[in-house]
Amino acid sequence: MAPHKAPDSSRRSDRSRRAIYDAALALVGESGYRRTTIEGIAARAGVGKQTIYRWWPSKAAVLMEAFLDLAARAAEEAASQTGGTGGQAGGTDPQAGAAEYGIPDTGDLAADLKLVLRATVDELNDPLMEAPTRALTAEGIVDAKLGAEFVEKLLDPQLALYVTRLRAAQEAGQLRSDADPRIALELLIAPLTHRWLLRTLPLTHAYADTIVDYALGGLAPRS
Amino acid sequence: MAPHKAPDSSRRSDRSRRAIYDAALALVGESGYRRTTIEGIAARAGVGKQTIYRWWPSKAAVLMEAFLDLAARAAEEAASQTGGTGGQAGGTDPQAGAAEYGIPDTGDLAADLKLVLRATVDELNDPLMEAPTRALTAEGIVDAKLGAEFVEKLLDPQLALYVTRLRAAQEAGQLRSDADPRIALELLIAPLTHRWLLRTLPLTHAYADTIVDYALGGLAPRS
Repeated sequence: MAPHKAPDSSRRSDRSRRAIYDAALALVGESGYRRTTIEGIAARAGVGKQTIYRWWPSKAAVLMEAFLDLAARAAEEAASQTGGTGGQAGGTDPQAGAAEYGIPDTGDLAADLKLVLRATVDELNDPLMEAPTRALTAEGIVDAKLGAEFVEKLLDPQLALYVTRLRAAQEAGQLRSDADPRIALELLIAPLTHRWLLRTLPLTHAYADTIVDYALGGLAPRS
Repeated sequence: MAPHKAPDSSRRSDRSRRAIYDAALALVGESGYRRTTIEGIAARAGVGKQTIYRWWPSKAAVLMEAFLDLAARAAEEAASQTGGTGGQAGGTDPQAGAAEYGIPDTGDLAADLKLVLRATVDELNDPLMEAPTRALTAEGIVDAKLGAEFVEKLLDPQLALYVTRLRAAQEAGQLRSDADPRIALELLIAPLTHRWLLRTLPLTHAYADTIVDYALGGLAPRS
């Protein structure tokens, strides 16, 4: 987002931007969405509030970008922890956000989905993500406008990756030809979100694997 | 909860209790969980706040019961709208809460699940439920203690009904013998919750039917 300038100024911008993201996420995690203010973010980041107003039109916009950046960092971390074979590949710009990462296509749908859902489990269980993700999701649940913005900018680009992978599987004969990929993906991701948001039971890799097995194989006996 | 007294006093208690439930749900829907107070509920219900303190130990307890009552009423309404064949049957006490309702067992697992998930769609889309359910869910997402209480008292009893029905299906050979019913149910209910909470796409009867078909039949082609 920052225009190309001399290296020094660009480095300063990057440092400020990262400080602003970190401050925004920390504050929303500690105090909730509503009590987080541009002034508070600026004070915590050690920048003037005009810096924030110059770069972003609103508090929601700062948080949206901070969140995209956080998701990209968490995905990278999950990938590095699993020896570089994390669920999401492609795209090396840490600012790019999860939407520029794709779901791998090794030809084995079950294996690819387990990889990406295990990485999602790691991201959701990452303490860095926990509080801000909960705060933003909770606010989106009661504030329809903010919720719609987060779905459009954060969630839908991620769901589109599943649609792409499931369509490829359909062409390869690994997904029922009559299944709608946009609905099918909900059987895969909604159980993870449900467990995590409502804290019903632990969210583990084994759970992610089981969801993939049940969703692909079906709950009814195969004759 | 009110001790048995003369009929007149009991009727007065019932009227007060209903007024308190309605006030609590209206306030939490309008102002959110945190800004709802016992004093506010008492004022809106037209009772003294000592009446509330006498019957309930906390704000969370009032809301929990108000919510159980609301869920029972919504389930009844959904049942009456579908000609008495709503998704939930058994139990005639409107104060009993959804946990005393069961999932029907006609021997046709897919039909029974569609019935109960369609009724769930109707309950979630009921404008009476919308704001308070969102407010309480959102608060449970950021407040782990409250969230755990709601899962234990409101959600788990409902999930237990699915476990019972899925176990019966397993014994009847309609559910894979190696499937864990407690996990299997998440493929059925989590997609509905996900759509409703995040407002990704419309939550309809057709969607509920599709989820049942995909979950039972599986997304992979049957050979």
